[in-house]
Amino acid sequence: MSALLELTFVLLALASCRGLQDGGIDEEPELVFQPSKFGSLWPLPQKVQISEVSFKLSPSNFQISDAKESRSGSSCSLLQLAYRRYYDYMFEGVKKVDRSVRADPTELLELQVWITSPDTECDSYPTVSSDESYELSVDQPVAVLKAPKVWGALHGLETFSQLVYEDEYGAKSINYTTISDFPRFAHRGVLLDTSRHFLPIKVILANLETMAMNKFNVFHWHIVDDPSFPYLSKTFPELSRKGAYHPYTHVYTPADVKMVIEFARLRGIRVVSEFDTPGHTQSWGKGQPNLLTPCYSGSKPSGTFGPVNPILNTTYDFMRKFFKEVSSVFPDSYIHLGGDEVDFTCWKSNPDIQKFMEQQGFGKDYSKLESFYIQRLLDIVTTTNKGYIIWQEVFDNGVKLKPDTIIHVWKGNQEKYQLEMANITSAGYQTLLSSPWYLNRIAYGQDWQGHYRADPQDFKGTEEQKKLVIGGEACLWGEYVDATNLTPRLWPRASAVAERLWSAKEVTDISDAYSRLSVHRCRLVERGIPAEPLSPSFCPHEYKGI
Amino acid sequence: MSALLELTFVLLALASCRGLQDGGIDEEPELVFQPSKFGSLWPLPQKVQISEVSFKLSPSNFQISDAKESRSGSSCSLLQLAYRRYYDYMFEGVKKVDRSVRADPTELLELQVWITSPDTECDSYPTVSSDESYELSVDQPVAVLKAPKVWGALHGLETFSQLVYEDEYGAKSINYTTISDFPRFAHRGVLLDTSRHFLPIKVILANLETMAMNKFNVFHWHIVDDPSFPYLSKTFPELSRKGAYHPYTHVYTPADVKMVIEFARLRGIRVVSEFDTPGHTQSWGKGQPNLLTPCYSGSKPSGTFGPVNPILNTTYDFMRKFFKEVSSVFPDSYIHLGGDEVDFTCWKSNPDIQKFMEQQGFGKDYSKLESFYIQRLLDIVTTTNKGYIIWQEVFDNGVKLKPDTIIHVWKGNQEKYQLEMANITSAGYQTLLSSPWYLNRIAYGQDWQGHYRADPQDFKGTEEQKKLVIGGEACLWGEYVDATNLTPRLWPRASAVAERLWSAKEVTDISDAYSRLSVHRCRLVERGIPAEPLSPSFCPHEYKGI
Repeated sequence: MSALLELTFVLLALASCRGLQDGGIDEEPELVFQPSKFGSLWPLPQKVQISEVSFKLSPSNFQISDAKESRSGSSCSLLQLAYRRYYDYMFEGVKKVDRSVRADPTELLELQVWITSPDTECDSYPTVSSDESYELSVDQPVAVLKAPKVWGALHGLETFSQLVYEDEYGAKSINYTTISDFPRFAHRGVLLDTSRHFLPIKVILANLETMAMNKFNVFHWHIVDDPSFPYLSKTFPELSRKGAYHPYTHVYTPADVKMVIEFARLRGIRVVSEFDTPGHTQSWGKGQPNLLTPCYSGSKPSGTFGPVNPILNTTYDFMRKFFKEVSSVFPDSYIHLGGDEVDFTCWKSNPDIQKFMEQQGFGKDYSKLESFYIQRLLDIVTTTNKGYIIWQEVFDNGVKLKPDTIIHVWKGNQEKYQLEMANITSAGYQTLLSSPWYLNRIAYGQDWQGHYRADPQDFKGTEEQKKLVIGGEACLWGEYVDATNLTPRLWPRASAVAERLWSAKEVTDISDAYSRLSVHRCRLVERGIPAEPLSPSFCPHEYKGI
Repeated sequence: MSALLELTFVLLALASCRGLQDGGIDEEPELVFQPSKFGSLWPLPQKVQISEVSFKLSPSNFQISDAKESRSGSSCSLLQLAYRRYYDYMFEGVKKVDRSVRADPTELLELQVWITSPDTECDSYPTVSSDESYELSVDQPVAVLKAPKVWGALHGLETFSQLVYEDEYGAKSINYTTISDFPRFAHRGVLLDTSRHFLPIKVILANLETMAMNKFNVFHWHIVDDPSFPYLSKTFPELSRKGAYHPYTHVYTPADVKMVIEFARLRGIRVVSEFDTPGHTQSWGKGQPNLLTPCYSGSKPSGTFGPVNPILNTTYDFMRKFFKEVSSVFPDSYIHLGGDEVDFTCWKSNPDIQKFMEQQGFGKDYSKLESFYIQRLLDIVTTTNKGYIIWQEVFDNGVKLKPDTIIHVWKGNQEKYQLEMANITSAGYQTLLSSPWYLNRIAYGQDWQGHYRADPQDFKGTEEQKKLVIGGEACLWGEYVDATNLTPRLWPRASAVAERLWSAKEVTDISDAYSRLSVHRCRLVERGIPAEPLSPSFCPHEYKGI
């Protein structure tokens, strides 16, 4: 197999630093491309055996079909659509199919997909406890992909497509291979922010596609925030009419949201929406009078507004109705409630708030007021039968949380976030890590290596504590990205996070990762995704856009 | 005019730093969008007066035509093509033109272009001494654009198109305006590197388009380097056949090069090619045996090669023939000869080189050997009647240079490059600055502000010395960019450099620049260029790609 990799990906690693100037930067060590014994598999499966024996695949003869024994059949459109999609990826550009072509004796004719569980979950939504495992055996006369549920089958199809390569004559080939695979973490997310810049639906869909190619399974949709409110609420249409950048062109209609959710489901991806309160709500105030706290300048309102006003009953009436809608629009069993970065300045300035603080006996401790708000919000959301995820500040401030709350760690350097993970899990809560994976922060060179090295279970704690780490998320906040640059900035940098969250803990060989990732990024490019380069190099099928 | 700007560009500057995490980075100060009195002009012309009086422009009635008095006419296809291009930019998407529409009394019907010099230079190539000035008067019944040469007219058309805006009903409008304009510096370049990653022709052309929208006038084509040799030489076809990433798909044919040069010429842009020797030549060695120095490991050749071998006559025979071709393929009167970053390790290891050093009396000073090579190369290029540009090391090493040599400064921090500029100009040479404009170096946030603040004449020296600074270049080295991410990484960051090099020295108001640049970037996006955002914001016409 090494011959083919040399053919499809040649990389020159030269000690040239023309681009850097002198007096430079701490750079990651220079890596040299050498074909990996794992080909271009990304993320690396838990168990892989690839032999030298290879079979050909012909676009005319090859098919993906349901195994006879499979509990899933032609009525499972999720799988049927996936078969088409992966056939397209593997035989991209092959237009002419000649049914009369006779099969070669060394040809692989079929991939049979065998769902073993009576409940295939074909028409369900994926959840945090979905079984995503699969087993793949590539052999003659047919390859077999076995999975308890459709989710594992989707991942197995991606893996199968990653095993297919072009030999020196451009012929599609695959080696005899056995794989047994399952994810290390259940929650493997990408956060996109559609408030600071509106992202057109097609950008979101393209990134869901790419997430599936990296076995991510959660789209954390940070849908609204201070700058704009693009979510079109049926209950409160004024929120986007006044809070979106534009009431028609810069909103997500109910149909848009539904489409995103279904597109994601078909790829095994959950959509976890975030409606971040009580801070980060400037845009909410435009369409919902009296929701935000009026800030005072001396004894008079200054005309500006602060966080959600926590002392009015109307606030909670609004939240009850709003989250009732949200909980029915987004089928996932979790909602992300935010709760980060609450600025107390405005609350402090407001005499009504001051009075309320006194009445409640909060003294001067505004984090108690914050907790008061969050507590009531959590109670409201609990009535919708949803679980919740919150940013770490809510935990840090000592708010009482349901035992199944998930706490999302985003602050601090390595030392700080490891301590936070230890504290959270020691208190018995589940947790998600994002601190080392703020991909909006960019730097010269191969910063994917730093993302790759971070490990969510790398903190001081018991085995029990480690088990409470359910995964992490790569975050691409929207200050400096929109449709013009989001996709190449996210990929393949997020791929590094994808492997860390899927593959075994021991998969840490950065050289091997570099080689597989280089070819993986070219595969993304071939599939039409503008994934940026890791180093001086070329792809056999370059990006066709500008 | 402020009403329209509020309509076409609304920016929310909020004190939210979600994307940054705590323990952050030195960030540029937060800027707030406020409509500029100069609208969205970029780069800012030398003299501008915009009044409140506005006229409408109708796609049905408006035309751009040659003034009766103009020395240029319908035979000047450079201008005729520019008229179409700018009509398209201004009325993008307006498909239906109704010739029967009666003109409104407040309508501007025509822009007349008046070339005043008998030699319009319509069929010439632009040069470093081209007259790029123009005068623009927008008034009824016709606007007049006066320029001595076509080059000024091209810039004036861009400026005119930047004055056109949409009023609150979407109607195209322009205000009564008078502008007198010329560039501060004659050489305003963008360097693209097609060796570390191959750039498809369409990417190069799209960036030439965008350069014209920013009044850049030099495309510095760093066409070959260590990693690959995509230039298809008619004299030495083996160079790209063996040195390119792929001999067919990753090369620039003579027809490609011709197309790039003509596309650039039609936009007033020079194409200055760089063939960098004696270092940065690994890819040359593949197709030209004996060109590079064989490195030794002990007493035996190690099988690797170093810089060009400076001790063989065959080297100079090759260079003579090669640069003869290059000088005829690239019509510009300058060639960039590189000369940077020569690594002496290989030369030192080679016994033949050691012997030669001895014979020449160079002692152990290998920079003397480098100078020996460069001197002979410069002599060769001189015979082709071309001027040359070289990187600063050639000057630093004391090579004898023709008085009209241009020395390109790329090394060091501000203190160092200012000293270098002082030294070069004090020795009487012309110089170009790039050190502060290595746009391949990326950082979180608004790094354009740093690029904007650098000034090429900001060093200790006499007025005479300052005059020797002929401009500068924004460099986007290719280690980490290819077709997937080059364009949004370059724009609008390079625009900051464009204004520094065109506008008056005194144009340094960063807030005003921010406001104009924000709208300018949306204009680039509307014209189909994926220029990345500066801050949380939206554009009335968002990017349509992914």
